[in-house]
Amino acid sequence: MRDWAAEAQKVSSLDPAWIQKARQRLKEQTRPEGSLGVLERLLERLAAIQKKEKPSVARKRILIFAADHGVTEEGVSLYPREVTKAMVLNFLNGGATINALARHVGAEVAVVDIGVNADFEPDPRLIHAKAGRGTRNMTQEAAMTEAEFDSAMTVGWNLAERAKADGVELLGLGEMGIGNTTAASGVIAALLKCSVESVTGRGTGLNDSQLAHKVEVIKNAHALHQKSFFGPLSILRCVGGYELAAMTGAILAAAKLSLPIVVDGWIVSASALAAIQLNSNILDYLFFAHQSEERGHRYLFETLELQPVLNLSMRLGEGSGAALAMSILEAAVCVYNEVATFTEAGVAKRER
Amino acid sequence: MRDWAAEAQKVSSLDPAWIQKARQRLKEQTRPEGSLGVLERLLERLAAIQKKEKPSVARKRILIFAADHGVTEEGVSLYPREVTKAMVLNFLNGGATINALARHVGAEVAVVDIGVNADFEPDPRLIHAKAGRGTRNMTQEAAMTEAEFDSAMTVGWNLAERAKADGVELLGLGEMGIGNTTAASGVIAALLKCSVESVTGRGTGLNDSQLAHKVEVIKNAHALHQKSFFGPLSILRCVGGYELAAMTGAILAAAKLSLPIVVDGWIVSASALAAIQLNSNILDYLFFAHQSEERGHRYLFETLELQPVLNLSMRLGEGSGAALAMSILEAAVCVYNEVATFTEAGVAKRER
Repeated sequence: MRDWAAEAQKVSSLDPAWIQKARQRLKEQTRPEGSLGVLERLLERLAAIQKKEKPSVARKRILIFAADHGVTEEGVSLYPREVTKAMVLNFLNGGATINALARHVGAEVAVVDIGVNADFEPDPRLIHAKAGRGTRNMTQEAAMTEAEFDSAMTVGWNLAERAKADGVELLGLGEMGIGNTTAASGVIAALLKCSVESVTGRGTGLNDSQLAHKVEVIKNAHALHQKSFFGPLSILRCVGGYELAAMTGAILAAAKLSLPIVVDGWIVSASALAAIQLNSNILDYLFFAHQSEERGHRYLFETLELQPVLNLSMRLGEGSGAALAMSILEAAVCVYNEVATFTEAGVAKRER
Repeated sequence: MRDWAAEAQKVSSLDPAWIQKARQRLKEQTRPEGSLGVLERLLERLAAIQKKEKPSVARKRILIFAADHGVTEEGVSLYPREVTKAMVLNFLNGGATINALARHVGAEVAVVDIGVNADFEPDPRLIHAKAGRGTRNMTQEAAMTEAEFDSAMTVGWNLAERAKADGVELLGLGEMGIGNTTAASGVIAALLKCSVESVTGRGTGLNDSQLAHKVEVIKNAHALHQKSFFGPLSILRCVGGYELAAMTGAILAAAKLSLPIVVDGWIVSASALAAIQLNSNILDYLFFAHQSEERGHRYLFETLELQPVLNLSMRLGEGSGAALAMSILEAAVCVYNEVATFTEAGVAKRER
C-alpha cells in the first residue's frame, strides 16, 4: 500500500509573496478597498496556487465518483441502490442536473465507476475503475479491505494527475452513491471526534425515526471499528466508501500539483477533511462550494472556521454546488484580470 | 406629476397555477425532491412571472444609474464626488468591475446619467437623462423637487419599458453615486420606521467616528422632513436620490410588464423597499442578489424575511452582485429546462 500520509506531507503551504502580490493588485483596481469581500480572499489563494500574474480557470473539469455502499442493507436511504447505476447512465446521457449546470458554466464532466454494485457495458464516456462492487456493510466489517482502499485512492490520485496533464485549471469533485451521506457522517464524526448526532442529517429526506435509525447504524459501526481508528486513512477505510477514498486521493494529488480544487457538498467535505487532517496545508488548495442543507455541514464549517462560496440549502451532490461555485470563481478571476487600476482609469482614490 | 402610487397598484400577484406547474416539473426531474433548495423557489417565481413552459434569461441587461448627492457637503463619504463622473467614464470604457462581471455572465450594461454633477460629452454609449445636477443637501431641503423626482422616476420607468421592448428577459439594477449609502440608509430607516443606527453602515470604509457623524446627518435630515413623510414616494423625494427614484420607477414598470428584476445591493434595496411598500405584489418580481457587507442589509432581509441569492460580504454596488446572481439564476433555468424526468431517464423514485 502506498504511503498516503507521506504523500500528503509533500503539499507545501502557499507562498505569502504571491498572496501579497494578489492583495496589492486588488487594491489598485478601481473599487473601494476590500469591497469584493469574500471574493478577494478566494482570488488571493487562486493566484498563489497557480503562481500566475493572470490566473485562469478557463479549463474546468468535474469528476463524479459513483459507488455503492454495503451499509444500505441497514435501511439508511430512501432510494434503492439501483439508483446509483441509473444515475450514472443519466450522467453519461447528459440528462442530470450536473450536466445542465456543467454545460452552463463551461465545465467538462467525467464520470467514474469507482465501486458501483452493477455492471456497465464498455463505454468510452465512462471511466471504468471499480475498486470493488459496493463497499462491505460497515456495521459488520470494514467498508474496504486495505487493497480496495489503496486501489480507490490510487484511482483518484491518477485522475487528478491526468486532469493536470490535460491542462485543467480548476478541478471540481462530485459524487453519486446511495447511502453515502451515512458514510460521510460516519467519517466526519470520527475525524472530528464529535457526536454522531451533530453531523448526521436527513440525506435524501429521512423522517425523524429514520434519522434516529441512521444515527444508531453509524454508532454501531463506530463501536465496531473504534480500535482500528488510527487516523484519517483508517477511518476512511473502515466507515467511508470507494468514492470518498478516491476523492481524498484526488485532493492529495491536485494539491501537490497546485491544481485548485472545488469541494462540492457534504460527501466531498468528508474526503476533504481527511486530507486536511493529513496535512493542514491542503486547506489552502480547497474551495468549498456551498453549505449543504445536510445538518452537519454547518457544524463542520463552524468547526473549521470556513465560509463556503454559496449557501442555497442544496442537498443534491453530483458536483452541482461545485459547478455553481466554479462560475463565481471564474467571474472573480475575470475581475482580477480585467479591471482597470485607479491610475489607468484616472479615478481619484479616497481622500482621507 | 404622474400618479406613481396608482401605477404601482396595477402590478398583480403571480398566478398560483404557474407556481404549481413549476413545482410539479421540478418534482419530476431526476433529483431527490427539494434538493435544489433555494433555487427551486427562484425557479417557481421565474416561471410564473414569464408564464412560459421553458423560462429564459438568455437576454440580460444591467442598468447602472449614476448620480451625485448634495449631502456629501456634510462629509459622509471618504471619496470626493468627482469619483462619480470618473467611474461613469470607467464603465463606458469597460474598465470597471461590473464590466468584467457582465462580460462573464453575458449581460449588457447600460449606463445612465440620471443626475451626475458634471458634464459629459455627447456619447452614444451613455444614456443622457439628467433629472438634475446632483441632489440638494437633504439636511437643508428636500433632496429633489417634485418635478425632479417625477423626472427621475419617469426615466427609470421608460428604461424598463425599453428593455422589455428590446426583448430583455432579466433586468438587473445597479448604481454609482458618491454619498448614496447615506441616502439609502435615510430612505430605509424612514420606510421601516426603525432606528437610523440599525441601518447605517460604513459605506466605502468609514471609521467609528465618521460613522457616528453619518448617523447624525441622517437624523438631522429626518428631523427636517418628518412632517413631509407621507409615504414611500415622499420619503424617496426628500431623503433619496435621483438614482434611487429612477430605480423605483424601473421596478414599477418592470413588474407591471412581467420582467423579472435582479436587485443588486444596499442602495437598490432602498428603491425596491419603496416599491414593495407601494404594492407588496411587487416582491414577487424581485430577485435579491446578495446580502451586502453594509450593516443594514442583514437587518432589512431579516425584517422582510427574505434570503438573497448570495452572501459574499461584498459592498461595491455598480450592479456587481446582480451580475453574479444573474449567472446563478441562469444556471437554475438551464436545470429547469434541460434535466430529464425520472420516466425519461429510467431512474427509480424513492421506495418509501
